[in-house]
Amino acid sequence: MNLEAQYNQYLINGKPSAGLSVNDRGLAYGDGVFRTFLVNNGVPHHWELQYQKLSQDCQALGISCPNNDVLTSDIKTLFNDGSDAVAKIIVTRGESSRGYAVPDDIQTSRFVIKSALPIYPLNNQTQGVKLHLCELKLGLQPKFAGVKHLNRLENVLARMEWKDASIADGLLLDSNDNVIECTMSNIFARYGNELITPSLEECGVAGIARARIIENTKRFNLDIKIEALKLNKLMQADEIIICNSLFGAWQVVSFNGKHWAKQVLDAQLRKMLMN
Amino acid sequence: MNLEAQYNQYLINGKPSAGLSVNDRGLAYGDGVFRTFLVNNGVPHHWELQYQKLSQDCQALGISCPNNDVLTSDIKTLFNDGSDAVAKIIVTRGESSRGYAVPDDIQTSRFVIKSALPIYPLNNQTQGVKLHLCELKLGLQPKFAGVKHLNRLENVLARMEWKDASIADGLLLDSNDNVIECTMSNIFARYGNELITPSLEECGVAGIARARIIENTKRFNLDIKIEALKLNKLMQADEIIICNSLFGAWQVVSFNGKHWAKQVLDAQLRKMLMN
Repeated sequence: MNLEAQYNQYLINGKPSAGLSVNDRGLAYGDGVFRTFLVNNGVPHHWELQYQKLSQDCQALGISCPNNDVLTSDIKTLFNDGSDAVAKIIVTRGESSRGYAVPDDIQTSRFVIKSALPIYPLNNQTQGVKLHLCELKLGLQPKFAGVKHLNRLENVLARMEWKDASIADGLLLDSNDNVIECTMSNIFARYGNELITPSLEECGVAGIARARIIENTKRFNLDIKIEALKLNKLMQADEIIICNSLFGAWQVVSFNGKHWAKQVLDAQLRKMLMN
Repeated sequence: MNLEAQYNQYLINGKPSAGLSVNDRGLAYGDGVFRTFLVNNGVPHHWELQYQKLSQDCQALGISCPNNDVLTSDIKTLFNDGSDAVAKIIVTRGESSRGYAVPDDIQTSRFVIKSALPIYPLNNQTQGVKLHLCELKLGLQPKFAGVKHLNRLENVLARMEWKDASIADGLLLDSNDNVIECTMSNIFARYGNELITPSLEECGVAGIARARIIENTKRFNLDIKIEALKLNKLMQADEIIICNSLFGAWQVVSFNGKHWAKQVLDAQLRKMLMN
């Protein structure tokens, strides 16, 4: 398959050749939300969870979420070749004239974009990954913490901090020096049979893979705690795992000057997440 | 002139009919900056200052800024009817495939949009304005504080806090309860012959009107201080002024349960800013 051609496939408000308006508030203000997930053989992975999160995120920003049927139909149209690919859905508040005020009659815009599966080194699964400790610290914004919104300059600038291709992701602290997440993944730390993931009440993105791990810890004989986590406590973890909806789960084996032996929890979680 | 037609005029990378790519990082991440300013009789207001700030803001985010000549030519093309209008320039990091990482060969995108002059009540000049105290508090992000970037969800949500058309703007505190700015303007407080404007080292947008007032206080026999400003100190001001490049300056006469008599500094500053 021609990846370049695949990469360029998209629907804007259901149409394959529509243009994106320069007046869209997604461009003007990052006034919208998004989801990124796998599509296997034309079928979106855990669509109900993805739609539920999209809908919650829209609600958090006061954006009218497109109906499930509408998005399901867009996905069906775009992935009708039965391909394995990545779907990205962007929902913005819509178009408006200049200025922050939102017109009463604004209509949501939706963008569904198909792109090639990412190619990750197999080593990430078999040997674990290395993390960079980001210098940039996440600002606190409880009004939309947890939401996967389009204001992602912090992630972009954090990602610009390293060029070393052997680094899988960068760990982000918040401005109070709490561990929050990585630029493209959530994080878990294991201490014996206790799994801790940072509270995301003040910043960060609460991803679907994180939610699924939280809901399924019992099956791995682990207890889960969602709470503030400091860097020095993270460094004492028996095991650190990062996760997202595209790669599943990877163990962190090198971070901030410390090394961990490769263990098996990441493979167990990955198997659960990818099913 | 047909305002609707005027509103829709734009150039994308210099072309009037180009489409905006769904892969533009301006949409995906708010990965860009913008400027908004008046064009009088086809001539952009204080263009050198606007370009200087655009260039500084691009540099702060590691974005390659279009040349002055290129943007000047875009403006000349778009405003060649000699109209009085508003120009908005958006510069994004450009297009890339999915993911935060920035390709080495990325090319900046530029958008120049012409829209109608805003219509403000004349009362705002003659009688002063009313401010809302926003519940949303600005997060701290020293890495791009002061920059007019495209991550403006805080402004959007703050602006959604009021519907009352008699309110001109909303005052924003940061998460440490410092007074920072309003949703679309900067703020000054006068105490005798001392003018204070909040430091924007940790959040907020450092606008051109603010910079010009800071540089010109001597001509109004005022001393300027740029420092942290708490709400209780703001409430004790002899006079509060808000400013931006479109309306110039307005005096705040009603805010947070207190009223101030209308004075003359706003008119003096406005005259200076609009020249």
